[in-house]
Amino acid sequence: MHGAGNDYIYVDTFRYPIANPEEKAIEWSKFHTGIGSDGLILIGYSNKADFNMRIFNADGSEAMMCGNGSRCVGKYVYEYGLTEKTEITLETLSGIKTLKLQVDKGIVIAVTVDMGSPVSTGSVLFGDEFPYQSTQVSMGNPHLVTFVEDINQIDLPEIGPKLEHYPLFPDRTNVEFAQIIGKDKIRMRVWERGSGITQACGTGACATAVAAVINGLASRKSEIIMDGGAVTIEWDEVTEHVLMTGPATKVFDGEITFS
Amino acid sequence: MHGAGNDYIYVDTFRYPIANPEEKAIEWSKFHTGIGSDGLILIGYSNKADFNMRIFNADGSEAMMCGNGSRCVGKYVYEYGLTEKTEITLETLSGIKTLKLQVDKGIVIAVTVDMGSPVSTGSVLFGDEFPYQSTQVSMGNPHLVTFVEDINQIDLPEIGPKLEHYPLFPDRTNVEFAQIIGKDKIRMRVWERGSGITQACGTGACATAVAAVINGLASRKSEIIMDGGAVTIEWDEVTEHVLMTGPATKVFDGEITFS
Repeated sequence: MHGAGNDYIYVDTFRYPIANPEEKAIEWSKFHTGIGSDGLILIGYSNKADFNMRIFNADGSEAMMCGNGSRCVGKYVYEYGLTEKTEITLETLSGIKTLKLQVDKGIVIAVTVDMGSPVSTGSVLFGDEFPYQSTQVSMGNPHLVTFVEDINQIDLPEIGPKLEHYPLFPDRTNVEFAQIIGKDKIRMRVWERGSGITQACGTGACATAVAAVINGLASRKSEIIMDGGAVTIEWDEVTEHVLMTGPATKVFDGEITFS
Repeated sequence: MHGAGNDYIYVDTFRYPIANPEEKAIEWSKFHTGIGSDGLILIGYSNKADFNMRIFNADGSEAMMCGNGSRCVGKYVYEYGLTEKTEITLETLSGIKTLKLQVDKGIVIAVTVDMGSPVSTGSVLFGDEFPYQSTQVSMGNPHLVTFVEDINQIDLPEIGPKLEHYPLFPDRTNVEFAQIIGKDKIRMRVWERGSGITQACGTGACATAVAAVINGLASRKSEIIMDGGAVTIEWDEVTEHVLMTGPATKVFDGEITFS
């Protein structure tokens, strides 16, 4: 399944337990000799929420949370009959997340994920070597959002890794460049910490929408258009939580033999 | 399935006819939003051979023949019970090819493909700009094979496209660099015409083995070690045909809904 081009292999571990997910994530994520994916997501039992979600990146490391992936988990558990609820809680390494499913004739057409409260850690000016003003936003993971006039002028493969590893960020940072299209529409491209350019990044979309509000560039609800697709972000005025709504797409069902 | 890392989606068109394979090859080959593959191979009815094989590249273009793919077709038709034969004829756009399967307990462990007769079209000296002597070999498609002392010294992404588009080759050419490891062992890397660097190239392995024999560098049977895996090439002295033996690996079975 994929959410805005961010694709994972989803396994129902109630039926198919996987003892060595780190190893399988590496093996199965390979494009030519494996199934091909950004990683492996395991859906399983939780004693704190409706389901547990574990995310393993293509390099075998475990991720805290994945907004695009959690929407697909919502579609999976509903469409495969693991639940009849349309509001679902999901235990992740960064806490319990709530999903709201939009269902049409048994098909989940969009999912809203409560991504929690953002923490803005202020503006950054880099000086001559990098003539932009950027905004730091944490969505549990760190983001550096820079608004520019023309996103096509940004050489992301060149600038991305420099900012990711900039000395100011000892834990490195995700890097977003964004262009305001309108008060409720933002074009964004992302350089993910540890992964490089990706098609879409859920927390990056949230951080971008929040940074746009902080800087007075957009309203509290806006569409973030990424290379792989678009999501709608709403920064709720009452709860201060960030709600992300976007698609979840099943590509195919597969059966693999493994040991 | 993949053969030495060259992966395709294989469809039994007796059961699942596909009306628009060019379109489906493009859509399904995409890594993040599709199944992810080098292309789509259709197995179907032939009135001239046991089966017909059509190969569509990831860009939707139709290929004449694919050695790595044909081995997987052999595994597919045998293991899924489309035939009980272990010697199978396959109609392709470049003629009828013969497969010989090595079967162990119902599993096809290796397949030999008769790749037909090579045509050597001589040596090429490029002069100062490219200080190597290369050998042209056609296996139905054109190859330019260059033996070097140390394959790790070759900057294939730099040299590959220059040779592919060299004015001497109006139809462009596939480009192989090879290093002799022993009389029966050759390390090879390939720049494929229209595709760039790939994990493995069946006709390229054949062309390399033939060029090694022509240049007195290897015996008529040798192992060609590519990035994605190894194949054994035998240039038969009697028939002058090139026989390629290599693995065929099933990764997973899948079900996709399409229109």
